[in-house]
Amino acid sequence: MKNLESLIRTIPDFPKKGILFRDITTLLENPQALREVIDLFKKNTPSGINKLVAIESRGFIFGAALALELGIGFIPVRKSGKLPGETIKVTYDLEYGTDTLEIHKGALEKGDRVVLIDDLLATGGTALASCRLIEKCGGSVEKILFLIELDELSGSEKLSKYDIFSLLHF
Amino acid sequence: MKNLESLIRTIPDFPKKGILFRDITTLLENPQALREVIDLFKKNTPSGINKLVAIESRGFIFGAALALELGIGFIPVRKSGKLPGETIKVTYDLEYGTDTLEIHKGALEKGDRVVLIDDLLATGGTALASCRLIEKCGGSVEKILFLIELDELSGSEKLSKYDIFSLLHF
Repeated sequence: MKNLESLIRTIPDFPKKGILFRDITTLLENPQALREVIDLFKKNTPSGINKLVAIESRGFIFGAALALELGIGFIPVRKSGKLPGETIKVTYDLEYGTDTLEIHKGALEKGDRVVLIDDLLATGGTALASCRLIEKCGGSVEKILFLIELDELSGSEKLSKYDIFSLLHF
Repeated sequence: MKNLESLIRTIPDFPKKGILFRDITTLLENPQALREVIDLFKKNTPSGINKLVAIESRGFIFGAALALELGIGFIPVRKSGKLPGETIKVTYDLEYGTDTLEIHKGALEKGDRVVLIDDLLATGGTALASCRLIEKCGGSVEKILFLIELDELSGSEKLSKYDIFSLLHF
């Protein structure tokens, strides 16, 4: 099999000029690669985790497959207005303006040991807001998994109090 | 285990007044239920399928888990502007206005035998547009899987030329 990094396609100027977008869809098309990614995520998930929280929407892809493999519940974090039930919210700063993330009230319980997952670690703002949501629910973030970490954006510094595993670095 | 239907939460007036929203997140929180859903989808996928196409974004959840189980490639269909590479598009009518779906060019090849998956069959417009995308790429839609079908909206009539399996009916 080709190595995982070579299956990530780089697309210049998406979504805007000057951004090198790391496209994971070329990896997802390869069933051996998807299996390898999930196996590596599983290997890097500590024991005793009882809930998986996945960030919309590419985090859902890896999150659902991993939750199935681990035999634990899957809980989505979504952007404002997407979850139908009563939610807990966190608003966080973007480069320009703010964004809000939500989790369903009752989806996590006090004492839950959580693995958080997303496809990409960039500046870390979304992941940090998701950690706050988990903690507001009484859960503890035991591990954060990313397929890709963009090293130059230093997102891991923002998440320094957490245990992070990024499968690929760019 | 409780039956799957009882794990779907019904939320009135979401996303707008008069709609009874069927919330799947309460099912996803239950790992035995997620396993049962994926096993039933697997059982209802014909042999010889070599690609899975999932519709954004709740379709990603079941699609990724099923693609992993089947050992086949995962291909996303997304709303306009979300996929970074060159795409093939289909525009379709909504109650008011139109919507556009996209698939990456090259993600499917002529002769691919495809299973299409989404969480919900309502009027069938999104699924039908996704079938057109698959066929424009030269693939054939061998099966369409839904977790939930809303019977009164008659989406299955719009998809009558396809082989559909809906796990739950409301």
